[in-house]
Amino acid sequence: MTGKIFVIGLGPGPAHWLTPEASAVLEQVTDLIGYFSYVDRIAPRPGLTIHGSDNRVELDRSRHALELACSGKIVGVVSGGDPGVFAMAAAVLEAVENGPEEWRGLDIEVLPGVSAMQAAAARLGAPLGGDFCAISLSDNLKPWELIERRLKAASDGDFVVALYNPASKARPKQIFDAFALLRTLRPASTPVAFARAVGRPDERIVLTTLGEADPGLADMSTLVMIGATTTHLIARPDGRPFVLTPRFYEAGQ
Amino acid sequence: MTGKIFVIGLGPGPAHWLTPEASAVLEQVTDLIGYFSYVDRIAPRPGLTIHGSDNRVELDRSRHALELACSGKIVGVVSGGDPGVFAMAAAVLEAVENGPEEWRGLDIEVLPGVSAMQAAAARLGAPLGGDFCAISLSDNLKPWELIERRLKAASDGDFVVALYNPASKARPKQIFDAFALLRTLRPASTPVAFARAVGRPDERIVLTTLGEADPGLADMSTLVMIGATTTHLIARPDGRPFVLTPRFYEAGQ
Repeated sequence: MTGKIFVIGLGPGPAHWLTPEASAVLEQVTDLIGYFSYVDRIAPRPGLTIHGSDNRVELDRSRHALELACSGKIVGVVSGGDPGVFAMAAAVLEAVENGPEEWRGLDIEVLPGVSAMQAAAARLGAPLGGDFCAISLSDNLKPWELIERRLKAASDGDFVVALYNPASKARPKQIFDAFALLRTLRPASTPVAFARAVGRPDERIVLTTLGEADPGLADMSTLVMIGATTTHLIARPDGRPFVLTPRFYEAGQ
Repeated sequence: MTGKIFVIGLGPGPAHWLTPEASAVLEQVTDLIGYFSYVDRIAPRPGLTIHGSDNRVELDRSRHALELACSGKIVGVVSGGDPGVFAMAAAVLEAVENGPEEWRGLDIEVLPGVSAMQAAAARLGAPLGGDFCAISLSDNLKPWELIERRLKAASDGDFVVALYNPASKARPKQIFDAFALLRTLRPASTPVAFARAVGRPDERIVLTTLGEADPGLADMSTLVMIGATTTHLIARPDGRPFVLTPRFYEAGQ
């Protein structure tokens, strides 16, 4: 009995951002494993067993998937966005690394997807037009000092920064601390966007500045984008400016 | 006459990584503009005019698209990967910013796509499982000193680094200079991957270390991935290890 695991990126939400590869695989799997919010996006069908689980049990979920694959199942582990970006691909491989030898022989395939920073960038214009960093603000798995060190390094390099996992009910404070730090590192006029649930019915985009931003706008479904020194707005007649980080960078800037 | 511009991400290459949104829009546009290699992926059809252009004329291409949209055309500007990541979204908005006032009133929509670092990550396992940076090595539009500063900052923050545009026929040297610098900043044992043309028939992945890597492996179709200090390999019986940057980071590491 040889099973398989597909680690599937569902994209930011809407069906039009789900890759045909992921759609096809979702039709083939015998078992689907993931956080409730993500497996809820998948329509039930005969032959498919759906195993929803709570948030923050990524390793349990991964081990369950690996056990099912060892018993011959074709298992889909679903993530929102891209499974390789702060999502299930790393959790599955951490479980493999620390699990029984036979798990290393399993066929495990990662299917990429559109990630939240890309959906946010598309709505805003071209904020990621220059070099950029992606940082998860969750300190569940790494020390807060490392996050501070990375925010400082990102400013030293004048990168645009995409902040993932900015806040949750259990972690309301980190985004305030991050903004307090960023305000010492970047000009108050730096463009900042809170892009919530992009592509979903409750999408909400707030465009502001580092000086004026209310970090309380961020929740688990929000991607926070912080501009570089070259990031700026292009005014438009409809009042919704584009956000642009140009590709060029003048020497001495 | 009101036209529109869609800035379309074609993804890394194969049709199964093209979003349904992009596919649907490709059926609607009257004009397609892009680098020859990208427009060549689109099948001709009645009612569609294809305007291929050479590489490195992104602003001319953008202005052409804007003029066509002003004359009422529905224009698709195509990029490989994600148009927001080192691709055409920023070029179109730079042209808007410096063009006639009426261009600012045009309807311009960016359609995200899977970017090269995501396709590479999917093949390798989970190299982007921690915080990461994306840096374009092209110094056509920014000074080399800025690229050096960003490589240093990325190492200060212990980010995984995805290097875009590592080399071209006109710029064979930068990737050698980048590796020379990186070798002073990160351990020789750091995992490095050269992921070329992922998803296309000529896909080739070379997994090596910073100490042993041959930078000459990089070309225009290559995404180079440099690990963080926590990035490591997981051996597998088939001899093709997974690359993992775990989500966790021990204090003091």
